[in-house]
Amino acid sequence: MTTVDLNCDLGEGFGAWTFVDDDTLLSLVSSANVACGFHAGDPSIMRRVCAAAAERGVTVGAHVGYRDLAGFGRRAMRVPAAQLADEVLYQLAALDGVARTVGARVRYVKPHGALYNVIVGDAEQAGAVVDAVRAYDPGLAVLGLPGSQVLRIAAEQGLPAVVEAFGDRAYQADGRLVPRRVPGALVTDPDTVAARCLELARTGKVTSLDGAPVEVRARSLCIHGDTPGAVELVRRTREVLEGDGVTIAPFA
Amino acid sequence: MTTVDLNCDLGEGFGAWTFVDDDTLLSLVSSANVACGFHAGDPSIMRRVCAAAAERGVTVGAHVGYRDLAGFGRRAMRVPAAQLADEVLYQLAALDGVARTVGARVRYVKPHGALYNVIVGDAEQAGAVVDAVRAYDPGLAVLGLPGSQVLRIAAEQGLPAVVEAFGDRAYQADGRLVPRRVPGALVTDPDTVAARCLELARTGKVTSLDGAPVEVRARSLCIHGDTPGAVELVRRTREVLEGDGVTIAPFA
Amino acid sequence: MTTVDLNCDLGEGFGAWTFVDDDTLLSLVSSANVACGFHAGDPSIMRRVCAAAAERGVTVGAHVGYRDLAGFGRRAMRVPAAQLADEVLYQLAALDGVARTVGARVRYVKPHGALYNVIVGDAEQAGAVVDAVRAYDPGLAVLGLPGSQVLRIAAEQGLPAVVEAFGDRAYQADGRLVPRRVPGALVTDPDTVAARCLELARTGKVTSLDGAPVEVRARSLCIHGDTPGAVELVRRTREVLEGDGVTIAPFA
Amino acid sequence: MTTVDLNCDLGEGFGAWTFVDDDTLLSLVSSANVACGFHAGDPSIMRRVCAAAAERGVTVGAHVGYRDLAGFGRRAMRVPAAQLADEVLYQLAALDGVARTVGARVRYVKPHGALYNVIVGDAEQAGAVVDAVRAYDPGLAVLGLPGSQVLRIAAEQGLPAVVEAFGDRAYQADGRLVPRRVPGALVTDPDTVAARCLELARTGKVTSLDGAPVEVRARSLCIHGDTPGAVELVRRTREVLEGDGVTIAPFA
Repeated sequence: MTTVDLNCDLGEGFGAWTFVDDDTLLSLVSSANVACGFHAGDPSIMRRVCAAAAERGVTVGAHVGYRDLAGFGRRAMRVPAAQLADEVLYQLAALDGVARTVGARVRYVKPHGALYNVIVGDAEQAGAVVDAVRAYDPGLAVLGLPGSQVLRIAAEQGLPAVVEAFGDRAYQADGRLVPRRVPGALVTDPDTVAARCLELARTGKVTSLDGAPVEVRARSLCIHGDTPGAVELVRRTREVLEGDGVTIAPFA
Repeated sequence: MTTVDLNCDLGEGFGAWTFVDDDTLLSLVSSANVACGFHAGDPSIMRRVCAAAAERGVTVGAHVGYRDLAGFGRRAMRVPAAQLADEVLYQLAALDGVARTVGARVRYVKPHGALYNVIVGDAEQAGAVVDAVRAYDPGLAVLGLPGSQVLRIAAEQGLPAVVEAFGDRAYQADGRLVPRRVPGALVTDPDTVAARCLELARTGKVTSLDGAPVEVRARSLCIHGDTPGAVELVRRTREVLEGDGVTIAPFA
Repeated sequence: MTTVDLNCDLGEGFGAWTFVDDDTLLSLVSSANVACGFHAGDPSIMRRVCAAAAERGVTVGAHVGYRDLAGFGRRAMRVPAAQLADEVLYQLAALDGVARTVGARVRYVKPHGALYNVIVGDAEQAGAVVDAVRAYDPGLAVLGLPGSQVLRIAAEQGLPAVVEAFGDRAYQADGRLVPRRVPGALVTDPDTVAARCLELARTGKVTSLDGAPVEVRARSLCIHGDTPGAVELVRRTREVLEGDGVTIAPFA
Repeated sequence: MTTVDLNCDLGEGFGAWTFVDDDTLLSLVSSANVACGFHAGDPSIMRRVCAAAAERGVTVGAHVGYRDLAGFGRRAMRVPAAQLADEVLYQLAALDGVARTVGARVRYVKPHGALYNVIVGDAEQAGAVVDAVRAYDPGLAVLGLPGSQVLRIAAEQGLPAVVEAFGDRAYQADGRLVPRRVPGALVTDPDTVAARCLELARTGKVTSLDGAPVEVRARSLCIHGDTPGAVELVRRTREVLEGDGVTIAPFA
């Protein structure tokens, strides 16, 4: 029997602002990456999303980011490692504390935006993220790209290191994502996204933009909530996976 | 044998800014009210203060405030109760999570600045603070003024409600603090502050600005870290209390 | 010939977040209240909205608010008057400077949210707002409710004090707005809103929730951009006013 | 007759926090780089520093930085160029508007911290800063390091590009500053700093850490307000320069 996790970034509003349709997406995914207040998210949104996740049996992960509301955590920052570790720990602890009051718990950490990208290759910032997670709870998983520094260090430190793949992003033949500025980088057709996710779940492979098979072996599949038509992409993906007998369930 | 707690607001710097001499004050008090990032404090300061507190056997409390860095939490805000509860919970959880990684734990909550003052009389905001504390951990104490709404509600909800008195503030005959704008509101002579603290510890009373005895029965005594000469006030108070055989120890 | 101004709050996104459909609303109004970065708005949004306003001949006003992104400026704050004046001045100057680089200029000031409500009755905060406007440019108008402290003080200080009325809000017989929590407080039917605006423009009167005629004599009509169906409300209002021969033009 | 400018970073407190002794330093320098609220500074501090500068005949410059209060603008950020230009413009306009209400005006722009360092070599971010200055007022000078991208672009765009040198920092033989982590990078002896400043003012040269003469030809000399003993460094430098007949006066 094949099982795969579906994750989505949620709770990324702030105050009066909303970002994506959290409620509908929560009804479709098995894991919710919940923003912790530094790049997005506020205490009330965090509580509501965690409560809704707990009700639906969706697992909660801490979607930690740079302290950059104005840039939505998408601007890389040269944060000294010790400071970054403290900032990650703060976010993680805040979300977990909020989650526990509504019957949920943080089970994993998935960095957001620029931080996610930086710690693919930057061992110092990657190590800071892992240090924070381990200091808080060495049983928490870290979710990231295959071959990234953050997963390498997490595994070395004894943390569960979980690979994810992106259903709505094109891949290069070498396994890296096609940069967003390149035409075709984003996949927005529901059937295509669903088919790619099914291929990933069944075979651990996805076809690159050049037509080559790329091995990813992801335990979790991510579709970005702000990709145009995201709700439909996730809905169709879930339908196709389940129709093919794949079980969608949290990895953590 | 008489025992009393000495508490001080600490960790109220932010980034490159410092506020008071945290290290010296930590060597003199038994309880540290540690800022949680909303009115002051940042993750690195929080970790450092908690680590130093743990080393010295000083108890850590969450010094939660309004989300108002620009106003240092000193500007009253009409925050809806549910939102306030979420904001308090977030701060409390963040600090406790950080504290646990360095061998400390949050043992009590003391609201800061304008929030402290508002919840003396505003039952709705007071209830929100108590809700947050109880949701996080019903074993945590709440520190406040005698007769305040927040202590009344905390006690009703089964939380330890702990009265504090201020060694560096003058009292009215009715037990309330003399407003800061009134001449004589602030007591800054070390011997006078120490003598008042000794009187409070030994008798549960303090002499009002008008010369009347005021009953306070405080289990904790606070001296503000930003009162002119604060380090000397706390040092002299400690000396006088211990010289008289009073034990200084955390209430929590 | 009857002329009236139509104003709307615009530019209230922040970073990755949007709030209302700025572009469409800009094509329908004659005055844009542009957020200045304290309750909403960021430098890039400010520039884009000002540039679009300049292109369309829409007048720009500074929509100044409390420093409260998390609460969208909707939480009343006890800001000391001198500090409030400085905060208003900062916002006004920033917006005007940005506007001038794209061929626009700030022509008036309309406070936002809780600040707007507080300075209806609080003469101290109202005076602070007027002080800031006058210090920056005594030729700028202030937009507000009839009978408010802020308009009274603005007029006393020699600033143009301009009354506005709300097309989408019900009035009490005494001329005050029906509080939002009362059923019927919000008017969301396009034809009704348009008819009320026409009545206001032609007669200076509007019918209260109790059926009584209320005199408002507004030179500007506001429809809230976040009222459900706001674009349709403004579109229909413009259509009805112009169909009846009313000219829609900036008051400033 | 030799004339040189002395500049210092001022107004870098925020809310309840102070950073350096603004008042004393204002009595010693000829130009004040005033923080604009993004890395430090708030509207009230900005007004007070500008008013004091106006009274003393000290020229005001806009000390613009990354939007990073938590990091004091010392963490490099990959801000897209158009967004950076908007953020610089906003800060510059806000400060100039505040300054004009107290009889001052912004006469130049000196970027702060990480932004200052990034635009030495990064032509894209440097161009964004220059774009913002030129859009606001092409008569404003830009202050920076000799050979930097920002001065090159400023000069190309017709803005006055003014070279500064650091009295309290050691130089490499190639004219670059010795990185702060290298022993000897910071010069903190008052007589040495004063002698270096005199050499710079008289000869346009300074001796490198290796003993080689370095040509700098600076029209302005900077001493960092947070260098240990800064007030004494500036005081002694002023004394030595004036004692040698050098006139200290604003470059702008």
